[in-house]
This record gives sequence, structure tokens and C-alpha cells, in this order.
Amino acid sequence: MGYLNNMEIKQKATNVSWHEGEVSREDRYKILPQIGATIWFTGLSGSGKSTIAVALEKQLQNHGMLSYRLDGDNVRLGINKNLGFSEQDRKENIRRIGEISKLFGDAGLIAISSFISPYVQDRDDVRMLHTEANLKFIEVFVDCPLAIAEKRDPKGLYKRARAGEIKNFTGIDDPYEAPIDPEIHLRSDKMTLSEEVLIIVNYLKDNDVITL
Amino acid sequence: MGYLNNMEIKQKATNVSWHEGEVSREDRYKILPQIGATIWFTGLSGSGKSTIAVALEKQLQNHGMLSYRLDGDNVRLGINKNLGFSEQDRKENIRRIGEISKLFGDAGLIAISSFISPYVQDRDDVRMLHTEANLKFIEVFVDCPLAIAEKRDPKGLYKRARAGEIKNFTGIDDPYEAPIDPEIHLRSDKMTLSEEVLIIVNYLKDNDVITL
Repeated sequence: MGYLNNMEIKQKATNVSWHEGEVSREDRYKILPQIGATIWFTGLSGSGKSTIAVALEKQLQNHGMLSYRLDGDNVRLGINKNLGFSEQDRKENIRRIGEISKLFGDAGLIAISSFISPYVQDRDDVRMLHTEANLKFIEVFVDCPLAIAEKRDPKGLYKRARAGEIKNFTGIDDPYEAPIDPEIHLRSDKMTLSEEVLIIVNYLKDNDVITL
Repeated sequence: MGYLNNMEIKQKATNVSWHEGEVSREDRYKILPQIGATIWFTGLSGSGKSTIAVALEKQLQNHGMLSYRLDGDNVRLGINKNLGFSEQDRKENIRRIGEISKLFGDAGLIAISSFISPYVQDRDDVRMLHTEANLKFIEVFVDCPLAIAEKRDPKGLYKRARAGEIKNFTGIDDPYEAPIDPEIHLRSDKMTLSEEVLIIVNYLKDNDVITL
């Protein structure tokens, strides 16, 4: 029952000064060999964002780091299932993902967010959320020429966009605004997956996000 | 460079079978001496939810467990800052918190959610989200007679509600629907804080959420 010892003191302060016992972010950060951070992948559909995010997640896991990947599957079907693809909804989609990433970072996890997120303003808003919360935001631009992404077309979406079956598709009839000064710039048409992951892992080490 | 060895294989499958390298929930659960779960506190304003949540968080932290407390401060001012207090918005508020708790649970954390959450239907919806995702949802009813909660009135809200300055205040002019069969039922007017925390910690141990 030793773990109840410090309870006896706090008990008296019920409902008065409950912040007293709060666990700080610094406390949480002691539990894992990492600090909380958000790695934000942006790029065209087919640029390789998901592939790199998955490979990075695996590398971190292999070294005992706890990360969590936010992507269309677990966001669009969950918390954002009440959002469509209007301009307003797309903006809200990115905003919520940014807020969730921030909560994960505050908790001590490395959030790996992988979304086209085509607008500079939306990404900068998410960056600002993190900066204000004193959390690291690492923007990874997965740069790939449209022609190559379209040729890969892993989900057949470009084909459908060209056929007019999908409207407002980024790169076809909707703009992609490239990051101007991302923390990491990957040329996925010229780099191998292992090179890309290594660049990110080295960045995380150099910036004291992870300890290897 | 040893950690890049398994990259060389996956590289060939770029954009084709990217799920292959995915880290599973079971993988993530190996990193911490716990499994993901949601502990959902419900009860009147002033019932003691936050006090117990904070004390529980501290106990878990002291034992190397990683939990994260979702409350009004980090939710209403963040992801849910575009929600008001209409019936629809209150429902959406709880839904989003439920979805975020689920993501935390999937990541391997113990989400400690502390909200009045007065409606059975809303709480059951959150429970269903977890059940469908094969995640533990532990509803903790912080039971306290209205008269006592109102007498405590830690935030002065009952006084304002009685004066008509706050409308639709749970317990005054809005209903609180008590849980029918919660996992844990605490009588905060009769139990000490240490007793309450001990009950929850024992529940977590008995149900293999934590290893102490």
C-alpha cells in the first residue's frame, strides 16, 4: 500500500487546489526515451508520404520509441467522420488533426501525421498551435513531381480525377502549395526509402527528440 | 546503420503494399507496462471528478505508467474551441473527446477523461466506439448528492446557475442521467480520495490494464 502514502496529504485539499497534484509534461517525458513532437508529412497524393511514415514508425518502434500515426484511416473514419471535402471542412479536418497531434505531443508521444495538407496557411496554423504550446513541429515535405506521382497513382485517384469523377483533386484541379522552409525536404523521386527514413531519424536525434 | 537493414526489403514495395510495415497495436503495447484504455469519469460539477482524476494520474505516473488527462482545459480551448453549449454542440463535444480517447487507447496510453457528460446516450456512444475498436472503456461514476456538490461549489457555478446567470446547468435546470451499470461506482461524499484512487487502481490491476 506504499503507493498511497502521498494520497493522505492531498486528500485534505479536495476540490480546492486540485492542480497541486498535476503531472507535468516534463514528468510524462521521463517515462519514454523521447520527447513529444509532431512529424507532419505533406505532399501530393502518391508522393510517398504514407510509405515513409510507415517505415519511420517501424524504425521508432524497433528502438522502443512510442509513436502514433494519424492518417486518413483513423481520422476520417473517426473524429472527422462528420467532415466532407468542402473548403471549410478540409480546413477543419487539418485543424483537428493539428490539435490531436498537439495533445499527443503533450502526452509524450511522437505524432506522425500524414496528409496531403495542400495549403500553406493550414499547415502554418498547425505549426503555430505547436509553437504556442512549446512543442516541436517538424514539417516534412515529400516532394515529388506531379507526373511521377500521377504515374504511380497507387489508389487510382489521379485516373479518376482526370476522368472528372473526382473534383477538386490536389495537383489536378486544386493547387498544392509547397512548403517554403520545411524542417525536412525529401525528394521521393530521387531518394530511396532508407535514405528518407535516415534523414528523419537523424533530424530527430540531432534535435533531441529521440535518444538512440 | 544496423537499424536500416530491414528497410532494404520494404523499399521495393513502395506505394504498393505499405500496410506491410505497419506497427500493430500489440507492438505498441509492448513499450509500456500497461495497455491502452479509457477511464471515463462522469458526475455532477463539484462531485470530485477532477480531483480523483488528478490523483489517479499522479499514482500512475509514480509507477511509470503513461496516462493523459483530457479535461475542459485542454479540450474546450483546443480541438473543441469551435463548439458552444447547444445540445448539438455538447453532444459533439463528448463525441470528439470519445474519439480522441480512443486514439490514445489505440496508441497505448491510458486516457483519463473527466467531464460531466450527463447523458447516458452520449456515454454509451463513446463506450460503443471503444467496444467496436476492442478497447477497454471504464466508466467511473463519481456519485455525490447534488446538495453536497452544490455546497462545495468549487468554481462558484452553482451559485451563478441559481442566480440565473448560467442556463442549462446540470443538476439545476438540466438533468444528470446517472450511469446504470458503471464499471466503478464511487460515493465521493462517503469515501476518501485515497480509497477512491485505490478502487480504481485495483480495478486496473484486476483487469490487466496495468502491471504493478
